[in-house]
Amino acid sequence: MKNETISEEAAIDLKTLLDHWQEHRRLTRRVIEAYPEDKLFTFSVGGMRPFSQLVMEMITIAQLGAYGIATGNWTVPNRPEINFTMQPPATKAELLKFWDDTTEVINTMWPHMTVDRMSQIDKAFGSYDGTITWHYFYFVDNEIHHRAQAYVYLRALGIEPPPFWDRH
Amino acid sequence: MKNETISEEAAIDLKTLLDHWQEHRRLTRRVIEAYPEDKLFTFSVGGMRPFSQLVMEMITIAQLGAYGIATGNWTVPNRPEINFTMQPPATKAELLKFWDDTTEVINTMWPHMTVDRMSQIDKAFGSYDGTITWHYFYFVDNEIHHRAQAYVYLRALGIEPPPFWDRH
Repeated sequence: MKNETISEEAAIDLKTLLDHWQEHRRLTRRVIEAYPEDKLFTFSVGGMRPFSQLVMEMITIAQLGAYGIATGNWTVPNRPEINFTMQPPATKAELLKFWDDTTEVINTMWPHMTVDRMSQIDKAFGSYDGTITWHYFYFVDNEIHHRAQAYVYLRALGIEPPPFWDRH
Repeated sequence: MKNETISEEAAIDLKTLLDHWQEHRRLTRRVIEAYPEDKLFTFSVGGMRPFSQLVMEMITIAQLGAYGIATGNWTVPNRPEINFTMQPPATKAELLKFWDDTTEVINTMWPHMTVDRMSQIDKAFGSYDGTITWHYFYFVDNEIHHRAQAYVYLRALGIEPPPFWDRH
């Protein structure tokens, strides 16, 4: 126990970072599934947004973010409708389909990521300066943050949410 | 855009992982500070735990976890009272002091972490098998998850929480 400096050697690889994000996204998908159809679009606590709107924010960040961190272009090619003013579709089934399309976008873009890219500074969504590593964490953490709010909504509705620790 | 395999080269170093955790802990500290003294110990939504109890879980995980991931010993030396049945102290000031002590424990243990250790499998808290990387993410993500629930509690109390994106 004599070492007092922190190793500068890299410790987590890109595949692990992809798996980490997609594990969380699988759990979020189960939280969407746990919702009664109507409550997904209407229910909230404390004047906050219903979960469907929080999910649209997650989808927007993931779609724009997957292109942005991989290429530096913070838009989805030929999909100008994917932006922060995008409204939820009318049904849970359509929302889940959009979720699954987003899973594929992330998986398709990830092989274009490089280790050098992770330490580069870029303006995420054209607005926020930071390293790609910081942006990556922001995408995942923002999803954890808003999904956790849906856990409270579900509890307030008397529904048991999926266990947080199960990401399989 | 021809590359279809994911780099196995490591991308995030240990110092960045420490900063990531402590940035989140600074935000959580501001959420504790934002609480009215009494509500911290009593208020909840949907039959969930009050925020003080969620904070005690974060402190327990961080204290035991900082020793565990660094040394493989999932207890705090000479502090048997730090465990998952630990109850909150009586005041916000005492809770914040325990929070700050925990900040120091993490900072003190971190230089003992190694890159090799991150891929080792260990039984966190004597109960959960996984790599040290997985456990590290669990500690941070569990804090984000429960802190986000306090955002809903604060909104339900009519109090504006600190901005999620500000971790300085």
